[in-house]
Amino acid sequence: MTPEIEVVNLRDALSNVAGHWSPAVVGAVNDCQAKVVKLQGEFVWHRHEAEDELFLVLQGTLTMRLRDGERVLRAGELIVIPRGVEHCPAAEEEVHVLLFEPATTRRRGNAD
Amino acid sequence: MTPEIEVVNLRDALSNVAGHWSPAVVGAVNDCQAKVVKLQGEFVWHRHEAEDELFLVLQGTLTMRLRDGERVLRAGELIVIPRGVEHCPAAEEEVHVLLFEPATTRRRGNAD
Repeated sequence: MTPEIEVVNLRDALSNVAGHWSPAVVGAVNDCQAKVVKLQGEFVWHRHEAEDELFLVLQGTLTMRLRDGERVLRAGELIVIPRGVEHCPAAEEEVHVLLFEPATTRRRGNAD
Repeated sequence: MTPEIEVVNLRDALSNVAGHWSPAVVGAVNDCQAKVVKLQGEFVWHRHEAEDELFLVLQGTLTMRLRDGERVLRAGELIVIPRGVEHCPAAEEEVHVLLFEPATTRRRGNAD
């Protein structure tokens, strides 16, 4: 068996994630990464100047606030926030999310 | 509402996919794309010279054949096949998969 080619169980990966807003990388695809993250509460408004960002909800409900209104995502739903677009993820209760984004993406974008 | 920023329901997207082995793009992240696909039967052995390829099982069971053995993935599990690694996806019964890969990825890689 080639040890580096392994199946990743997302539930197991999430069980190793302590706390909220702290993504853990679960896979790399060329210049992009897949990450699991637990979100709860409200993040900060921010944008990524050069990176698009995909959010796929695995469990729970995610509210994606945009300047023109909000989008509500449930398990099995995804949204892509294009580069340059201000957004603020929020979740009343804990939500489990799979992110796909360039490895260069800074978590808080321009808010840092 | 910014019309281009919309929630994609993966089940709905899959319901519009006719047939097997025909991915439909559901999102773009910089140079990469997310695609949904239904797989059943056995594909061809192939490799992608320049692209890593992520398979996330949404429903069903996927067998990923590699030259050193096979990996079995169930819903909520993913695998990344690094560039250059020969692989052959197979599924006895229909499986629903989310792919994440560079937009340049040719479906059958070097088998074309």
